[in-house]
Amino acid sequence: MYLYSTMRSYVEAASSAKPTPGGGSIAAAAGALGMSMACMAANFTVGKKKFKAVEGEVRKQLDACMKARDELLRLMDEDTQAYAEVSAAYAMPKETAEDKAARTAAIQSALVVAMDAPLKAVRACRVALQATDALVEIANPNLISDVGVAALLCEAALRAAKLNVEINLHSLKDDTLVEKTRAEIEEAAAEGKAYATAVMTRVVKAVGGTI
Amino acid sequence: MYLYSTMRSYVEAASSAKPTPGGGSIAAAAGALGMSMACMAANFTVGKKKFKAVEGEVRKQLDACMKARDELLRLMDEDTQAYAEVSAAYAMPKETAEDKAARTAAIQSALVVAMDAPLKAVRACRVALQATDALVEIANPNLISDVGVAALLCEAALRAAKLNVEINLHSLKDDTLVEKTRAEIEEAAAEGKAYATAVMTRVVKAVGGTI
Repeated sequence: MYLYSTMRSYVEAASSAKPTPGGGSIAAAAGALGMSMACMAANFTVGKKKFKAVEGEVRKQLDACMKARDELLRLMDEDTQAYAEVSAAYAMPKETAEDKAARTAAIQSALVVAMDAPLKAVRACRVALQATDALVEIANPNLISDVGVAALLCEAALRAAKLNVEINLHSLKDDTLVEKTRAEIEEAAAEGKAYATAVMTRVVKAVGGTI
Repeated sequence: MYLYSTMRSYVEAASSAKPTPGGGSIAAAAGALGMSMACMAANFTVGKKKFKAVEGEVRKQLDACMKARDELLRLMDEDTQAYAEVSAAYAMPKETAEDKAARTAAIQSALVVAMDAPLKAVRACRVALQATDALVEIANPNLISDVGVAALLCEAALRAAKLNVEINLHSLKDDTLVEKTRAEIEEAAAEGKAYATAVMTRVVKAVGGTI
């Protein structure tokens, strides 16, 4: 499991001419990295007298951040495992008309399996960005740039995961499922972008930078 | 060194109430993850008959991507080490006027040291995005969504690293250095955004998605 690989070996495996780990796994990993910064900001806030008034709310958001982070770490590997099914479907024989029909059906099911991990990553990043937006107002202001890093990386991770859903939708023939999934990822991307923009507007004001 | 930590332990260390690894390290790590996807796309292109016409150019860009990736992996740890100096400066005594002057001077030098790793990460991400833009036209089109993931993550990593430069510039009193550094990171961010937008425009056209 890549979760227990070193950063160097995970990055090297991802760089090589092997299909896994691919974009879905890397997107989830980037989201987990982003979430760690929101967790750090919350952990530097809870238990401090100065922030006692917001303690309950920060703890609630920290819990949401840790759940999203752990889900994204899990998806790093889930995405990699799903690929085996897609690969097996494409390797099926295509000699006779019967072969071809069976192969097409297997590919269609495999596409649904393959888009599951990036779809879950889109959802986890959406929750992550909502929690980051809640934290930017109340977390220890010494860590505001780290909250900004969380927003930037989780929004990019959401868009990267969305791209990995879209590449599967591109070949999927079940129009109802395609439409439903497209609507969900578009809404998540729009909401994620709004949260990230709100966070970054606040962050750059505090650090005197630019968006 | 976090480079040789597992993903889980790096993410857990980053999440904890300890100042390192912080935003600068995480930004560099996200850039390295992004670059791995550009390397994968290039590695699925070189040595194939079908892409023989662009072999030389793809090899050149692969080389640039691997250098940027390895620099970003190195910066994951360099950023963490620099923090010790900042911490030591802030811990200096501030009883007498002499103490205070020495402490202020030490903090000012430490800020310059602390912004060095994120500044190098901004530069590496700029090179990374330039190479990604060159690859999107010529790499194996089966991996176009992975090239998109590279662009999304490296642009976010550039912006996250820039934020970690800005937070140091905010307290730095050397106006000439502040101005020069701000100009460099603004230019890098604008250029990086232009490359990422060009890549994503091409990618979403191919996968039938949205930016």
